[in-house]
Amino acid sequence: MSGGDTWLPSLITETPQQGFALAVTLSQKGVATTQPDAEVRRAERPEYAEEADSLIAVSHVIATHFQTVAAANDYWRE
Amino acid sequence: MSGGDTWLPSLITETPQQGFALAVTLSQKGVATTQPDAEVRRAERPEYAEEADSLIAVSHVIATHFQTVAAANDYWRE
Amino acid sequence: MSGGDTWLPSLITETPQQGFALAVTLSQKGVATTQPDAEVRRAERPEYAEEADSLIAVSHVIATHFQTVAAANDYWRE
Amino acid sequence: MSGGDTWLPSLITETPQQGFALAVTLSQKGVATTQPDAEVRRAERPEYAEEADSLIAVSHVIATHFQTVAAANDYWRE
Amino acid sequence: MSGGDTWLPSLITETPQQGFALAVTLSQKGVATTQPDAEVRRAERPEYAEEADSLIAVSHVIATHFQTVAAANDYWRE
Amino acid sequence: MSGGDTWLPSLITETPQQGFALAVTLSQKGVATTQPDAEVRRAERPEYAEEADSLIAVSHVIATHFQTVAAANDYWRE
Repeated sequence: MSGGDTWLPSLITETPQQGFALAVTLSQKGVATTQPDAEVRRAERPEYAEEADSLIAVSHVIATHFQTVAAANDYWRE
Repeated sequence: MSGGDTWLPSLITETPQQGFALAVTLSQKGVATTQPDAEVRRAERPEYAEEADSLIAVSHVIATHFQTVAAANDYWRE
Repeated sequence: MSGGDTWLPSLITETPQQGFALAVTLSQKGVATTQPDAEVRRAERPEYAEEADSLIAVSHVIATHFQTVAAANDYWRE
Repeated sequence: MSGGDTWLPSLITETPQQGFALAVTLSQKGVATTQPDAEVRRAERPEYAEEADSLIAVSHVIATHFQTVAAANDYWRE
Repeated sequence: MSGGDTWLPSLITETPQQGFALAVTLSQKGVATTQPDAEVRRAERPEYAEEADSLIAVSHVIATHFQTVAAANDYWRE
Repeated sequence: MSGGDTWLPSLITETPQQGFALAVTLSQKGVATTQPDAEVRRAERPEYAEEADSLIAVSHVIATHFQTVAAANDYWRE
């Protein structure tokens, strides 16, 4: 959230799959906002990436953001 | 999310049951995105698949995605 | 999700109570999909059924599915 | 869910407060469905009722059901 | 939920901030319903109030209730 | 929530990114409400900021608030 970088110009994507990718980005941004030091995040990553429960928890956050992105795109209905 | 493979062309399914299967796929994709190494995921699977709390957590992620898929399909109302 | 069995023909139920029962079924199906071996699931059941936190977690999954089923039925408003 | 007892005739309540009470009932029913033995549930209760994290988890389940009940009642808007 | 006290007359608030305060009240009520003994709750409070994970969990419950209250108020759009 | 400070005048933001920042604020406010002592919160921060599971949990709370803020803004659709 620092500075003036635009990383989230829109919730609209062309396809559901791009919408899912955006949900992944949003879930990572939620982590990065709380722990802005990329070094620390990199140090933690191998750890939780091998911990099944952490992976499931990340997947839950992605699912929550995907609800938002899918609704924003009216579920890419046509 | 790597490369150009299309794995999520649409959220629309013919039946609720196919929608549930799609929710399962989405929850797995959330894990796979964070831990792209299939070998590591396979190594973790026996572990969490026998851990009741992990199974319940997976079931929660599926439930969250199923909300999205069901809404996208207008709940397959007729 | 195996084979051609239809276990989820519809999200529509006659009463809220039947809708709640369907939410319970959906939450169990989420577990069964990840651990398809009924023997293993049976082995875990006594364990988590006596663990308060696991019961609360299951109750949360049911609540999430009940949101979906209730919306599908327009909350059985009349 | 056993037998023919009707415990959930409707999601409609007269007031928000009655709706909250219904959300509490629904969250308890989710637990009772998974552990139908009232004796066992009573045995666990003192335990989790003194465990802050369990109380917070129960409160989360209630919150999820309250979303459903509130939507069903159109938020008791007038 | 005991007795005839009215603690939740309405979900409507004048401002988003009052709505957030109501979400906090609702999350506390969910805990109080399960552990009605105020003494016990007070005993637990210092403990979880210094436990980061518990604070985050409380914050999640508040977020869930805030969704409900915000929707009830049509997001205080004007 | 103390005193008369207005910290949440509106859920409306100009851009999705500002909406995400508001979701972060809301998630922090949920913690601050339960633990109003800024000293204690500061003491906990280094701890959970290096704990992957806590960061993921914070990210989940942000995701929940972002659903609310995004809906309030009609997803910034144009």
